[in-house]
Amino acid sequence: MGYYRTMPVSRVSILGVGLLGGSIGLAARASLSSCKIAGYGHRRTSLDKALQFGAIDEAYDNAAAAVRNAELIILCTPVGLLAEMLRQIGPVCQSGAIVTDVGSTKRSVVKAAEETLPKGVHFVGSHPMAGSEKRGVEYARTDLLQNATCILTPTPRTDTGALEAVEAFWQSLGMQTTRLSPEEHDRQLADVSHLPHALAAALIAMQSDSTLPLAGKGFLDATRIAGGDGGLWRDILQDNRDNLRASLERLQGQLNKLLGLLEPKQAAQLETWLNAAASRREQLLQQKLHEVTPD
Amino acid sequence: MGYYRTMPVSRVSILGVGLLGGSIGLAARASLSSCKIAGYGHRRTSLDKALQFGAIDEAYDNAAAAVRNAELIILCTPVGLLAEMLRQIGPVCQSGAIVTDVGSTKRSVVKAAEETLPKGVHFVGSHPMAGSEKRGVEYARTDLLQNATCILTPTPRTDTGALEAVEAFWQSLGMQTTRLSPEEHDRQLADVSHLPHALAAALIAMQSDSTLPLAGKGFLDATRIAGGDGGLWRDILQDNRDNLRASLERLQGQLNKLLGLLEPKQAAQLETWLNAAASRREQLLQQKLHEVTPD
Repeated sequence: MGYYRTMPVSRVSILGVGLLGGSIGLAARASLSSCKIAGYGHRRTSLDKALQFGAIDEAYDNAAAAVRNAELIILCTPVGLLAEMLRQIGPVCQSGAIVTDVGSTKRSVVKAAEETLPKGVHFVGSHPMAGSEKRGVEYARTDLLQNATCILTPTPRTDTGALEAVEAFWQSLGMQTTRLSPEEHDRQLADVSHLPHALAAALIAMQSDSTLPLAGKGFLDATRIAGGDGGLWRDILQDNRDNLRASLERLQGQLNKLLGLLEPKQAAQLETWLNAAASRREQLLQQKLHEVTPD
Repeated sequence: MGYYRTMPVSRVSILGVGLLGGSIGLAARASLSSCKIAGYGHRRTSLDKALQFGAIDEAYDNAAAAVRNAELIILCTPVGLLAEMLRQIGPVCQSGAIVTDVGSTKRSVVKAAEETLPKGVHFVGSHPMAGSEKRGVEYARTDLLQNATCILTPTPRTDTGALEAVEAFWQSLGMQTTRLSPEEHDRQLADVSHLPHALAAALIAMQSDSTLPLAGKGFLDATRIAGGDGGLWRDILQDNRDNLRASLERLQGQLNKLLGLLEPKQAAQLETWLNAAASRREQLLQQKLHEVTPD
């Protein structure tokens, strides 16, 4: 990190031009001057908006057509569609092409890519950790990825040159890159992202209609992540269900601890537990303040 | 609501001049021109700041002295100190004085007041739902209470005139008032405020040191409430532990439902459950947008 090489890429294909795909297109066009961006989408209106906003140079309603002659192909469709997308493009990717994705879970897509893509087409899993609960290319922003972290998930079968090229690509868009195995990625993201999402949704679901209007700003903030698209999150939570179950069990351990600390004689320990959480969050906030894009 | 009577009060005593006590003082001085505000605090520095910022007119380091000749006395100390505060002021409140508080739990303070205060001194429980994870009179704001909701918790023993006078006081500071029994208040607030706080703290506590740096803006928002003062929240969670346990059980019911929906064949039901949560939150947000103070 810090030393940014530029990947000499002349044609990038973005499959799925929503918030994230559109933002990648905008950032790539701003950073990589001689690069053409081909976009694929299944809805004509999204493609038209992506062209109009300058997120892509060429629009295709057929994934196979969109990847022809591309050196870098970025899958930006929902997690549940990635395997099917790989099947569609596998036979038509040019030799030496590099395929990556932006999915929030990584084991399944890496496995599908290693099974599906022909020899000579390289896959590198990516998870650029940027986004919003908003959806659609109309919310795309050139700076959405700026200073955010992108986790790459190589396996022993990953081509080193392809890995470095994909790292260089994300870095050229202003991202920090880091590496985790697909297994470690999915385990850690269950704790820090998928469980919080599930909890936020459950916290809303448990409220009665008469209680909910008493909710204040704290409740709205605590549940903001649950405002995301149900279809996208259905895929993520189902795909990572083994880790999500384990994360939930570990949360339950902390909640059991808290239940024990509710007895009056445990007052000092409860205060310590609460203050430890507050100061861990404060530390995290301070770490993030210099790397998170203003919103 | 909408029809605001002004309580003809010439002397208010605020016991505890922190964020909330200080904001009440600022708002009262702005709205009730001929009213003197006496403030009590156990730290001289807080009292000096409260005087300096104009949140109080007179400063006392003795609660009994601060309530002398006050028509309205507002307890703004942490929940765990309210019973002791009532014991200190009971013998010196003038006949006809009205005592209220701003605590986040209501059964215990209402019970303590009904047991402690002498005949002729009226108690009305209040919970102005405004605040911040910040602490201290230096964060007090004249508009903190503006448009926020204040829940009053009368019992069959509450004097109707005192109840209406306290409602009129909060309304004169720009708040919306509503009434709930102390039992109903504590039950509903456990769901909508105390459980979310406990969950946010547990969500931080369960993270490993290596995973936490992967947390993004969503995690920070989801855990913002856990940044509050551990001592204040220790009191609230312990005081309301029976309801908090029941809320946690009902959350567990929703989490069990979610675990069942993680199986691939339940995809449609999971999406429905997630979208229902997202749209309930969106409805709440729209309701709140016109009543929440900009921050």
